[in-house]
Amino acid sequence: MRIADSIKRLGVETAFAVSAEAAAFAAEGNKVYPFHLGDVNIMTPSNIMDAAEKAMRGGKTGYCPNAGIPQLRELLADDISRSHGIDYAMENVSIQPGGKPVIGKFLLTLMNPGDEVLYPNPGFPIYESQIEFQGGRALPYGYVEGKENFKLDMDSIERQITPRTKILIFNDWQNPTGAECSPQELEKLAGLAIKHDLYVLCDEAYFDVRYEGESVSLASLPGMAERSVILYSFSKRFAMTGWRLGAAIGPRDVIDIITKLNVNGESCSNHFIQYAAMEALTGDQAQVRQMFNVFRERRDAAADILNSIEGVRCFRPNVTFYLYPNIAGAMELKGINDLDEFRRALLRETGVSVCTRQHFGRSPEGEKDFYLRLAYSGIDIQQIREGLGRFKAFVEE
Amino acid sequence: MRIADSIKRLGVETAFAVSAEAAAFAAEGNKVYPFHLGDVNIMTPSNIMDAAEKAMRGGKTGYCPNAGIPQLRELLADDISRSHGIDYAMENVSIQPGGKPVIGKFLLTLMNPGDEVLYPNPGFPIYESQIEFQGGRALPYGYVEGKENFKLDMDSIERQITPRTKILIFNDWQNPTGAECSPQELEKLAGLAIKHDLYVLCDEAYFDVRYEGESVSLASLPGMAERSVILYSFSKRFAMTGWRLGAAIGPRDVIDIITKLNVNGESCSNHFIQYAAMEALTGDQAQVRQMFNVFRERRDAAADILNSIEGVRCFRPNVTFYLYPNIAGAMELKGINDLDEFRRALLRETGVSVCTRQHFGRSPEGEKDFYLRLAYSGIDIQQIREGLGRFKAFVEE
Repeated sequence: MRIADSIKRLGVETAFAVSAEAAAFAAEGNKVYPFHLGDVNIMTPSNIMDAAEKAMRGGKTGYCPNAGIPQLRELLADDISRSHGIDYAMENVSIQPGGKPVIGKFLLTLMNPGDEVLYPNPGFPIYESQIEFQGGRALPYGYVEGKENFKLDMDSIERQITPRTKILIFNDWQNPTGAECSPQELEKLAGLAIKHDLYVLCDEAYFDVRYEGESVSLASLPGMAERSVILYSFSKRFAMTGWRLGAAIGPRDVIDIITKLNVNGESCSNHFIQYAAMEALTGDQAQVRQMFNVFRERRDAAADILNSIEGVRCFRPNVTFYLYPNIAGAMELKGINDLDEFRRALLRETGVSVCTRQHFGRSPEGEKDFYLRLAYSGIDIQQIREGLGRFKAFVEE
Repeated sequence: MRIADSIKRLGVETAFAVSAEAAAFAAEGNKVYPFHLGDVNIMTPSNIMDAAEKAMRGGKTGYCPNAGIPQLRELLADDISRSHGIDYAMENVSIQPGGKPVIGKFLLTLMNPGDEVLYPNPGFPIYESQIEFQGGRALPYGYVEGKENFKLDMDSIERQITPRTKILIFNDWQNPTGAECSPQELEKLAGLAIKHDLYVLCDEAYFDVRYEGESVSLASLPGMAERSVILYSFSKRFAMTGWRLGAAIGPRDVIDIITKLNVNGESCSNHFIQYAAMEALTGDQAQVRQMFNVFRERRDAAADILNSIEGVRCFRPNVTFYLYPNIAGAMELKGINDLDEFRRALLRETGVSVCTRQHFGRSPEGEKDFYLRLAYSGIDIQQIREGLGRFKAFVEE
């Protein structure tokens, strides 16, 4: 069948190829240490599962409103109002089958063909794909190494803004770098958005995934709520990745259109799972806290070993469950120039499976891209120690 | 916020407004007889719920492959291969969060802007909306009253085909009319599709919703499988409307791209619900059979009463759970010329809430559109008798 022309512009998550490679390697009888997945290997809290079951058995198995059940929309509006200091009502919330659907729907709602969209690169690769698939112009901005963590390359945003620039996609608590903006950086960003009348997608999938301090949303700054849509996800905060539930939160006119896209696309999100999400927001948080304690231990173990490896330098972000080590020195030690060759050698020789910078958008020309991305959400601490010990030996022996 | 231009072309399901109207009327303390919804008021079979719970508690709560879990894809390929006489493998199946998502993704995959798309009108309104939203030219074809049921207006298809016509959307076991093509009509359609190199979306949401005989898919005819994508839905067949699970089934190249759209849109469909779907396909069918017995009784009760009303003429289709009575005579009796005015008067005077022809696409100019659509899937037989008795009194007294 002749495929539509626009499909040529549709990208993928190349990280799925890494999963397939790791699975094939494991199928040959090899031990694999899975650092490549942003999935969670901890069970969804049992009180959330109890609520799902109760709603299902109670007959919440028919259609529900396109924008989600009112009770959940209200609870989520309350939750976000509290954490963001913004006064959201139910009408500002459209429940989605995941956080990811918000990316495409936000662009469908606000971007005209030819509009310029700033997006993080390295960053979640679907931004780039959706911008280009829908006929926008994708303007990548970067992150650079700071003292204690990666920093937004503010200059790479500022110098690219033109009168055609309409949208900024912003992913604080950033995947893959683990970067988090300072209050000064947020103010600067807000100033740019207001000055140039940019609309902002705040991808807050990792807003609640943190080990110290408190998250402050760009949407919370004066003048920003009316130009921002928040991508909310239940996935990482509550170990509900496979449940597929999230939301778009923002100005009513935009939320109404996003819901209209749901009428056309999915009718509604799963009905009884929305009751589970209500329990997630308001029920006992003991198991959630326990999960974050486990994550923190994993992070520290992983960062300690990585930093002990010759030629490897790794920050220890307080947010997300990713590490993004610079391995330029290790590559030199091994005499490997190509990042993906290093990744494949590491898998083959040690079983450690990782993503690299190259899985997070097309690297701009000339970029020194010697970074790996390790997720510690899907691998136990013992396996982290064992796998990264092998990594160390691979580099140093 | 300034909304993107293309959103102007995005339609809705106006039937949702009828739901809202009925809900408001009920909230005023009035009795409502809900014939407007294509939802099912029968519980999902308990063995399917058991399987969902088992998978959820067993930890199937993380991400799964974009195209769905291989076991479900295989079972569904087997099921469709058997019922369609086509040799589908797992690679021909992409699991989706509902049947509806297949409409938009099929068009994204195959339609270029300006391509002409034939679609049924009256028909599911999302066809028209998605074609126009995505920049296609929507060519409506109709259904006409035959002897025992509605018939496809083949001429309205044939006379509109031009060299720019690329796609035929076909919904046998049709919503709203309950029409079903004869073998001769299917052959004629297949001949047209092959002659004019049309790609076909076979919306088979109601393939298994039937009370006599066997469904034959247009995709089953020689030369058709390679140009057809089947929209499959678990919703109506298994009383799983609110679970949101369906699939696209067709040639591998198209299915691969549809899955790529899932990578960009949803990552994957809910993981543990896919185990419930496996049970639906292979488990005990006693509760499903019981549901269809109930539907048949409801159909007969509703059709009998409707046909006893002066000025109302109603077929009794063996498929779907809809009735589409011609009420021209009743409108004349009541002295009402406007279809929607009749609908509103009926609700106000009797509590009977229905959709009309106008909720199923823009009526072509000059069409005599005096039809109501009654769904009997969401209302018990006692309520059917009571409500339609009031309908009768409303017309005749």
